[in-house]
Amino acid sequence: MIKYKLLLSYDGTYYAGWQIQPNAVTVQELVTKALEKFLHEKIHLIGAGRTDAGVHALGQTAHFILSSRSDQGRFLRAANGILPPDIRILSVEEVPSSFQAQYSAKGKIYHYHLWLNPVQSPFQRLYSAHIRFKIDFSLLKEATQFFIGTHDFSAFANSAHEGAASRDPIRTIYRLDLIEQEGGLRLEFEGDGFLYKMVRNITGLLLEVGRGTIPLSAIPPIFASKNRRQAPMGAPAHGLFLVKVIY
Amino acid sequence: MIKYKLLLSYDGTYYAGWQIQPNAVTVQELVTKALEKFLHEKIHLIGAGRTDAGVHALGQTAHFILSSRSDQGRFLRAANGILPPDIRILSVEEVPSSFQAQYSAKGKIYHYHLWLNPVQSPFQRLYSAHIRFKIDFSLLKEATQFFIGTHDFSAFANSAHEGAASRDPIRTIYRLDLIEQEGGLRLEFEGDGFLYKMVRNITGLLLEVGRGTIPLSAIPPIFASKNRRQAPMGAPAHGLFLVKVIY
Repeated sequence: MIKYKLLLSYDGTYYAGWQIQPNAVTVQELVTKALEKFLHEKIHLIGAGRTDAGVHALGQTAHFILSSRSDQGRFLRAANGILPPDIRILSVEEVPSSFQAQYSAKGKIYHYHLWLNPVQSPFQRLYSAHIRFKIDFSLLKEATQFFIGTHDFSAFANSAHEGAASRDPIRTIYRLDLIEQEGGLRLEFEGDGFLYKMVRNITGLLLEVGRGTIPLSAIPPIFASKNRRQAPMGAPAHGLFLVKVIY
Repeated sequence: MIKYKLLLSYDGTYYAGWQIQPNAVTVQELVTKALEKFLHEKIHLIGAGRTDAGVHALGQTAHFILSSRSDQGRFLRAANGILPPDIRILSVEEVPSSFQAQYSAKGKIYHYHLWLNPVQSPFQRLYSAHIRFKIDFSLLKEATQFFIGTHDFSAFANSAHEGAASRDPIRTIYRLDLIEQEGGLRLEFEGDGFLYKMVRNITGLLLEVGRGTIPLSAIPPIFASKNRRQAPMGAPAHGLFLVKVIY
């Protein structure tokens, strides 16, 4: 038995997210099918985390077990030859049997792209959220400070489809940077882990603070409430990228 | 009578190019229809140049004449509200009646994006040509030197659909730079004008030289032949961007 780790990139636009679902096309399903097709063997592909419908990945990781060793160069070409061009396997490597894509992860990096110009770029329309109101950068920057460190993020977590109640809501965000880029900016989140929809929900709040509809002083009570309903709507899926899973 | 100049950006993926055609959806058609819809007036939209099916534009320009002055802020919002999100009007300005989008142009800048990694990025799949063979950068660089300056580019021009024979094949390329970027490189072409498919045909030759199938010494005879059949196939449409029209 050989364990393999995959590094994957995908444009989430046309998929119902990572996780296999009964009535929708997902990334996990297509990658599993592509691998099974040329490996002639049933595999069980485990991702480092789910990405929602419309969310993109520059560096999702996954693992699976194979009955015997496979040539990695051939593997990459064969799998990418079967997969649609909006899903690519970037690399494949053999890992120790103790490796587990989800539980071995020490952290994750997500980027959220905001397009702030009045006219959205045709080339960024699927890869950034178009914000039509004026954002106060220094307020936004100040607001990010409330999220860095170890907190109970219950107010920023949607209940997931299964087993959500039992998940520990304490997470640590090591870094939340604002980087200016063409047409707007991106928020870079690095943390030990993120709850369901947490990055989009935090981004949603940051945008409300940046536009002046929610004061900075409202942030600590929102945290304290541990109630998702106290925080504003999450930011849309298509601005979000899973950039890297850290092991 | 007021003359307006538009600056346009579009993702060419789903269009049969700029120019109106009987049985295909084109950018010129959709922009014309969008303008007519809220201006309540027939307009004749003239572009700085045609872009082919699949070719993108970061800065196409066009002009049209209107019977009376229109508020430019309102204009921009209304037109972009009607247009599909892969076509955007970036700006609109009043120009002197002597201005003509095509004939007033002093030059154009095109970029051609080459993806050189073995695995294509899902996010660049529609915006760069995936080159699967090894390219010798210094050979490619040397080859570009043959194209800079004033030449008869007949061997690099396809015959256009109309009036091609009468067009002067002498053009001047001021600049042809190789810029390394994530995943590969881009070729930056700046010239006083470009013949039909000239940028893609030059890129096609440069790639053959870069991979070693055509020697540098073959370039002057190809120019001298003035025969399109002497030069190799053009590079694909989706790597090409019209970046700027210079007035």
